Amino acid sequence: MNIIPLSMDKEVAARTARIASELSACGIDAMLLSSFANLYYTCGRVFCGYAYITSQGKITYFVKRPVGFEGDNVAYIRKPEQIAEAVASNMPKVLALELGITSYNTIERLKKTFPGAEIADASAIMGKIRSVKSEYEIAKLKTCGIHHEAAYSRIKKIYREGMTDIELQIEIERTLRSEGCLGQFRIAGDTMELFMGNLLCGYNAETPSPYDFAMGGEGLDTSLPVGCNGSLIKPGNTVMVDMCGNFNGYMTDMTRVYRVGNISPLAEKAHQLSIDIHHRLAKMAVPGVEAKALYEEAVKMVKEAGLEEYFMGLKQKAGFIGHGVGIEVNELPVLAPRSRDILAEGNVIAIEPKFVIPQVGAVGIENTYVVRAGGLECLTNAPEQIIELY
Amino acid sequence: MNIIPLSMDKEVAARTARIASELSACGIDAMLLSSFANLYYTCGRVFCGYAYITSQGKITYFVKRPVGFEGDNVAYIRKPEQIAEAVASNMPKVLALELGITSYNTIERLKKTFPGAEIADASAIMGKIRSVKSEYEIAKLKTCGIHHEAAYSRIKKIYREGMTDIELQIEIERTLRSEGCLGQFRIAGDTMELFMGNLLCGYNAETPSPYDFAMGGEGLDTSLPVGCNGSLIKPGNTVMVDMCGNFNGYMTDMTRVYRVGNISPLAEKAHQLSIDIHHRLAKMAVPGVEAKALYEEAVKMVKEAGLEEYFMGLKQKAGFIGHGVGIEVNELPVLAPRSRDILAEGNVIAIEPKFVIPQVGAVGIENTYVVRAGGLECLTNAPEQIIELY
Repeated sequence: MNIIPLSMDKEVAARTARIASELSACGIDAMLLSSFANLYYTCGRVFCGYAYITSQGKITYFVKRPVGFEGDNVAYIRKPEQIAEAVASNMPKVLALELGITSYNTIERLKKTFPGAEIADASAIMGKIRSVKSEYEIAKLKTCGIHHEAAYSRIKKIYREGMTDIELQIEIERTLRSEGCLGQFRIAGDTMELFMGNLLCGYNAETPSPYDFAMGGEGLDTSLPVGCNGSLIKPGNTVMVDMCGNFNGYMTDMTRVYRVGNISPLAEKAHQLSIDIHHRLAKMAVPGVEAKALYEEAVKMVKEAGLEEYFMGLKQKAGFIGHGVGIEVNELPVLAPRSRDILAEGNVIAIEPKFVIPQVGAVGIENTYVVRAGGLECLTNAPEQIIELY
Repeated sequence: MNIIPLSMDKEVAARTARIASELSACGIDAMLLSSFANLYYTCGRVFCGYAYITSQGKITYFVKRPVGFEGDNVAYIRKPEQIAEAVASNMPKVLALELGITSYNTIERLKKTFPGAEIADASAIMGKIRSVKSEYEIAKLKTCGIHHEAAYSRIKKIYREGMTDIELQIEIERTLRSEGCLGQFRIAGDTMELFMGNLLCGYNAETPSPYDFAMGGEGLDTSLPVGCNGSLIKPGNTVMVDMCGNFNGYMTDMTRVYRVGNISPLAEKAHQLSIDIHHRLAKMAVPGVEAKALYEEAVKMVKEAGLEEYFMGLKQKAGFIGHGVGIEVNELPVLAPRSRDILAEGNVIAIEPKFVIPQVGAVGIENTYVVRAGGLECLTNAPEQIIELY
């Protein structure tokens, strides 16, 4: 079996060429990757081991597990020291390792494996590369958007009067899984944990969480303090659904809002403003625009409407309104006030201007978009208005 | 709100004292923790920030998020440099950081924050401390075992003829969640990923996976190559269920096997041997016994039965038969041939002697046990025999 799945040969060759070109530009001789997300990017498959890419564009997969891969570009190893032996005839003077991902102890061991090599950071380079999606990747994300939307379209039928937030969430999880969702919610870094997404109902949306998500919630347990807390879904409440869109290793990010009975005019107004912000940003977000300009435009619209108090949380506010998404849910670019990212064609971004309205709950939508030459192309095309549950 | 949940005051004090005592014994002045699993251990709550523990037994929580904690032991910070300012009057000469968990870049930043401090590894120390559970922790694990068993007891009713493996898994996920399972499957390190557990049916059990789990499976996608692959559950097949037991921040690990119709005598024999191994090890595993001795005893029994070929996988074999479990699924001790761990009273271990039988599937059970003075106390008391699905 080839480590590169059938039909991905050209795609992997193109990705490898991009990485090699970036390595050359940075004066780096080779890059060694071992995080699952980056390995998956380099060959279309998760394995246990390393991808070693040279600035000349040669990629070698050093595999620990599973058994069974064949090919010139595959070498089985038991320990990383064998990588250095294998490349001994062409030892890198500058080697990039995943310094922002891999543990200190593991990096120290790898450094000893390549004595004398100057060490550069692969995580930042890979983050930049992965932020620009190929048409192959965009097609995968489109597929996610279609399934994501199909699952959300059944939420209205799933709801039963008298449900708690977690009861509804469990049924949505089942619907997503039946639609093909892999469940896995991949998050880069160590500032977030989440099980298959967040559903926030009523007052619980006001509870701040420790995580770096846009919204919070108390959670069901102090070990995972986010999302549902077991509250009854009551008339006058909103239910915000922001659940996992990973159907094929890539994930769309989509939030929609439901209500039971009528909700306050303030909540309706804030939700409409979120939609308006999306439409404004969809036109404004062309390649070359600063990511922070999108954040600033959203804040400007919120201030004009006098809704700052509720924007991105009440007691605790998230410091961004959007983020890149792909293999992981928190990729580049980041739509935040101090972001230095510049939008590029092929970026895939989730935009989520949200509000927490006291006694009502969270409102606002989130969509995943591709940055195209003429603006944003939406991948998550579910109806934007608040949907009544009955 | 106090960062330490009500009713945990004494427990947290005892844990802090244990950590302080270990720090003193190692000649370490202070420890700085930031991983969610270790933070949760130090206060019974996940937050974003740091726990700073001195060898004198003082613990301070430096919190980034969420807002709202009060108390003498809480200080809000925006960046780690503020921790060094706060402890400036008593700067540690030797400081333990989570070198085996935290990324290289983050550790380098922390090292600069405490210039001149000698750096030790907190991850190894915390792994050792957390491997011995308190009665408070064991009570939480007992609760998990009860719910875990209750959910598994419904599997027979959930099954419908003509189901695929993933269809059955989705219904079991729902049942677990309805029983209170938090879903989150916490794994230390970066060699494993799993969504809520593994269900393996028939031939698919033979497929090796990249992960460091006891069993494999092809998975539904190359981005998550483990577990179900969409196969129809057919007569003559076994279905091995090894799903998430996290009901309260701690997790039991339990595997049970189901069958459709009759399975081969070889599979029946191997399953019975797994049960026999459990019963043998349950008596043998007393404090002071080497963890590797349990592995060796299991292998001896397998060889006597002539079943080595099928033990712990066919094409690829797992190198262990059990592991510690608690907040994470892969804690100490490890029951493996080269393990140096010695069993201690209060260890909680999952034992999983399993077999893969060609054309039938996986058999064998997994239970979670507490190491007590007189041997193992089982926390996962579901029936051990193979259960027929119809």
